[in-house]
Order: sequence, then structure tokens, then C-alpha cells
Amino acid sequence: MEIIEATVARVQDLDREAMREARERQEQLTKPRGSLGVLEEISVQLAGIYGDPRPLPGPKAVIVMAADHGVVEEGVSLYPPEVTAQMVLNFLAGGAAINVLSRYAGAEVRVVDVGVRSEVEGEGLVVRKVKAGTDNMALGPAMSREEALAALEVGMEVAEDVVAGGAKVLAAGEMGIGNTTAASAVTACLCGVDPGEVTGRGTGLDDAGLERKVEVVRRALEVNRPDPSDPLDVLARVGGLEIAGIAGVMLAATAARRPVLVDGFISAAGALVAAGLQPKAVHYMLASHLSVEKGHAVILKKLGLHPIIRANMRLGEGTGAALAFFIVDAAMKILDEMATFKEAGVSGPE
Amino acid sequence: MEIIEATVARVQDLDREAMREARERQEQLTKPRGSLGVLEEISVQLAGIYGDPRPLPGPKAVIVMAADHGVVEEGVSLYPPEVTAQMVLNFLAGGAAINVLSRYAGAEVRVVDVGVRSEVEGEGLVVRKVKAGTDNMALGPAMSREEALAALEVGMEVAEDVVAGGAKVLAAGEMGIGNTTAASAVTACLCGVDPGEVTGRGTGLDDAGLERKVEVVRRALEVNRPDPSDPLDVLARVGGLEIAGIAGVMLAATAARRPVLVDGFISAAGALVAAGLQPKAVHYMLASHLSVEKGHAVILKKLGLHPIIRANMRLGEGTGAALAFFIVDAAMKILDEMATFKEAGVSGPE
Repeated sequence: MEIIEATVARVQDLDREAMREARERQEQLTKPRGSLGVLEEISVQLAGIYGDPRPLPGPKAVIVMAADHGVVEEGVSLYPPEVTAQMVLNFLAGGAAINVLSRYAGAEVRVVDVGVRSEVEGEGLVVRKVKAGTDNMALGPAMSREEALAALEVGMEVAEDVVAGGAKVLAAGEMGIGNTTAASAVTACLCGVDPGEVTGRGTGLDDAGLERKVEVVRRALEVNRPDPSDPLDVLARVGGLEIAGIAGVMLAATAARRPVLVDGFISAAGALVAAGLQPKAVHYMLASHLSVEKGHAVILKKLGLHPIIRANMRLGEGTGAALAFFIVDAAMKILDEMATFKEAGVSGPE
Repeated sequence: MEIIEATVARVQDLDREAMREARERQEQLTKPRGSLGVLEEISVQLAGIYGDPRPLPGPKAVIVMAADHGVVEEGVSLYPPEVTAQMVLNFLAGGAAINVLSRYAGAEVRVVDVGVRSEVEGEGLVVRKVKAGTDNMALGPAMSREEALAALEVGMEVAEDVVAGGAKVLAAGEMGIGNTTAASAVTACLCGVDPGEVTGRGTGLDDAGLERKVEVVRRALEVNRPDPSDPLDVLARVGGLEIAGIAGVMLAATAARRPVLVDGFISAAGALVAAGLQPKAVHYMLASHLSVEKGHAVILKKLGLHPIIRANMRLGEGTGAALAFFIVDAAMKILDEMATFKEAGVSGPE
């Protein structure tokens, strides 16, 4: 807990002077004022994060937190739980969507077993298993508060390691059969909305499956009565080990003055917990895309984040975030490389 | 006219067999069915366009059509008309937003003077000036039907040249002070909506400026009475030389079985004309982003295209399309590089 408190306390405000300078430069570039919209906003945000009025693209990393969920016993997923471990091996072998997109973006993929049910081994895997999957939250707490804290610390440590290795832009993704159910419970509780409004089809449930899933989320909240004013309580009772890990990644990235890309619904649930622990963390976040999972939009709205890509994706892993690396780099390149009106001899507005 | 008719006649249907094979492969890849949304759809569309069930990324080109507009006399733009020529020089020098984003995407930028008011010279500029800017459409036709056809042919020839040079993905952008006014008139007429619904602030008009602009579009339509059933008539009377050029680019790309990325509002107006001449052309188009210019959404809806990026951009030049090159390549890489369930030893849905 002290590590978490120390990290939370280390988070600084964005650098207003660097942001002012970046904004000033944007207005001198050869384009109508504000015409590059979000690209301009991102460049100013990055200037504030890095404390550099003209930041440049740098190394990128996607941290993929993997864990299992006891609640799959309730029949909330189309896929069997062993797929979590199988997909971890697929990540290590480079065959998953996140590998393809990260290779293309030139980003490292760091895979972390923070709570996979079975033993998984493989070159490159960061084994930091806090617990072999959560307990079934429909019957009792998913995990203890101590376990949630431990998983959060795992995320923090991995992010710090990735930053120490040179990463300038981070993204937080995940793998965990059953984790949209946990994300729905966390979101319903922390955003104060009905489970029906934040529970989606996950990997592809039909109507009956969706109805059952909403019912399970509702039951988990009734059985556990998590305290919405205490994000760690919510995380422990109805969350997931990978959601805790993602919250840790986001806090540590924030404390290290690194932008962190929010991926889909699960990643956003981690962002929601991080923002609950340190509201300033949101200034370091960028929303990459809007997932088909309807809880995702609820979280982004709550956090005041605007997704850039609308591609009806719902895979997770960090795939939406990996696609958005290009947008982030493009924003920096625009700020750095475009000619000013003066340099190009172009007339300004009359 | 014969060249245009011949090109229109050469357009083929997408290759259904290649699409079926691509779709089949998508369903074997290690992800829930359909979970990569638009990325999957794009990969299938590209398979159909190329007639190749597993297409790979290739060279890219942005064609930037530049032209002036007589209607600027009516005070519809914040910027003086000489900015068109100044920006053409900026494109040639590599200092504009489209240069920055195209460099990043590895795309060639081909700049075409299809109707800039003044004489412009510079290395790399394709000079195919049909007319030194359109006439003021608020007083009479913007150009003759012959001039519109000539500009359309310029676009076709440039696109054919770019394809002959190896380009596998094309994008159509533009530069032309005053061209959102022309695009609004074209859109209002071809989509059958009121000018107020498709006229925006362009480079940044205030409320009074916007009101004046809507009034000018309305007057242009009243004075010219373009025939909505004849896209060439609309193009000539209330369009622009660069809009005609873009329509030509899109038709030629389509005839050559190349995907073409639609950029913002002006580019979409060109797409609308192209689709009016050959409805099959739409199958070869991808909508890159959604512009702030409200007419853009009206056109995309009419064409049934869904924009991928929402970044509040309104610059034109091809900038949104250049950002979307990454999405298109990512879609192909997903299809080509991901492991199948079988290869990765991952269980499918139960």
C-alpha cells in the first residue's frame, strides 16, 4: 500500500508552460487555426506530459496483463477459461492481433501473468501471478484487498521497468476470459449505473447469454456490496487481477510522466480505478478507440476522454491502443515538422 | 467524354471468391468472430478489390488536386485566394500537414494544378491547368461542361499514372480556397438537402460569415439550377476543378482495381460525383475520417460509407486519408500475419 500511495503522491500536474508554447507553435503552422483538431490537442497534451514544447516520437510499449476469472463458472463467456493461458502462449509466439499491430507500430509487447489459472511458461513472459484467477464474484469477493493491491503493484512495477527501458508511450491491454463481466461490475459500481447499461456481449453472447451475464453482474454487486467511494474495495470485490494490474500501469506511467493509451472496455475499467485513486492520472491518458462493449463509452464519458478510432472493435489485448500509436506519433510529427506561415511564405487569415 | 465513358465501363464488381476466402480466413484467426470489426471488413473489401484473398500492403499515393474558386469574391473564406498557390509551393517544399503525414505513412504526394488562378511552378508539380480558377458561381456557372470533363480527365490520367508507378492504395485530397462553398453546393444538389444542412465554417468563419456563405450557396443553386440527375451538370455549374479532378481520380482508381481513401468534405464531394457516374465506384472507396464540416457526414451517409477516425479535423489536403493509410495496412497485416486457432493451439468457442 505504501508503494501505491507513494506513486499516487508523485503524480504531477501537466507542464502548463510547455503546453502554452506548443499551442503557440500550432497556431503558426500552415493550416487554419485548430483545423487538425484532436491531433493538435494531443500534441499539446504530450507537451504538457513530457514538459517539452516540441516532443518527438519515441519507443512504445504495450503491457498485456493476463488473468482468469472465477465468475466464468456462471457461464458468462463463450470461450473456456483455458483460452487465457493459450492466448498468453500465442502472445509469446507473436501470433495474436496485438503482436501484429505492435510489430507494425514498432512497439514492444510485454506480457504479464498476474493471475492466470494454470501455470504458463515461455520466453519473455513476466510471471507475477498474485493468485490463480479470481474467485467467483457471484458467490463472494473476487479477491482480498491485499491481493488487489498486490496486482496493482505488479502493474506499477512492470510499467516502471518498461519506462526504465526507454518507453516513451505506453498502452495497457489485457487477456482474461470472463473479464468483460468483471469490467461491467466495476463500471456499474464506480459510475453508479445499472448493470444492464454497461454489460455487453463480450466475445459474442447471444440474447439469452447476455441476459444471464447482466444477472450475474447484478448478483455480484448484491452479494459483495462494494463501496463506490473506495476504488480498491470495488476492484477487490468485483474486479479482476488484470484490471488491477492495468490500474497500476496507468498510475506508474502517470507518475513517470508518460502518456498511456487506454484500449477497450477492460483497459478503461483499469483507467477508471486509477482515476479514482489519483484524478490527475486522467491528464496522462488518451482514449484510443470506442469499443462495441457499451460500458466503454460510459467510462470514457465519466473520465472526459474522447475516442479517436471508431472501428467496432471488441477484442481487447491492447489492439485499439496499438492502432492509436500512429495517431500519437502523427500528432508529434505535425507539431515538429510542419512549416510555419512565415517559413513557407503563406498568407494568414484576412 | 469517351475516355470517361470508357473508364466508367471498365469498372468491375468486387471479386466475391477472394472475399469469401478472406472472410473464411478471418474466422480462423485467434480472436472472437468479428471482434476486429472494421479491420476485418476492410481486409475483406481489399481482397475483393485486388482479387487476392490475402492482399499485402504496398506503395501508397496521395493525389492533391489544387484549384481556385471565383466564388471567393463573395467573401466566403477567411483566407485570400493567393493562399491556394502559396500552399501548392508549401506542398512542393514538403512543409504542409499532408507532407508530414504522408512521409510518416510512406506515401508519395502528387500535387496537381488543375485550376490554380495564378501561374505556379516548382519541381514535382503536375501542371494540368484546365482554367485559372472557376468563375463566380453566385453569378453564373462555375465552368462549362467541357471544362468539368477536362478536369475529370486530368484526375483520371494522374491516377492512372500513379497506378502505373506501382501505387496499391490511393487517396484523394485537395487545396483550394473557397472549395467548401463549392462542395456545399454540390452536396446540397446531389443529396437533395437544404444548403443550411451542408454548409460549414470552412477555415473558421464566424456566425455572420457562415450565414453569408449559406446565402451564397443558395444563390448559386438558384442562379444555375443544376440538374441533380446529371452529376456532370452539377459539377460544372456549382462545383470546382479540384472536385472534378478528385472524381476522376476515384473513377480511375476504381477502374484499375485500387482502393481509394476518401478524405474530408471536398474529397467526399468528388466521391459523390464519381458514384453518380458509376455506382460501383463506392465499393472501392474507404472513408478515412469524419470532418467537422457537416456536409461530410451527409455525403458519407448517402454513399453508405463509415468513417474510421474521429479527430475533429477540417483541413483537407488528404490529411485524414493519410492517417487512415495505417488502418488499411493494419487490416491487411491482421489478415496475413495472425495465427489461426489451429496453428496456435487455442480453443474455439464452446
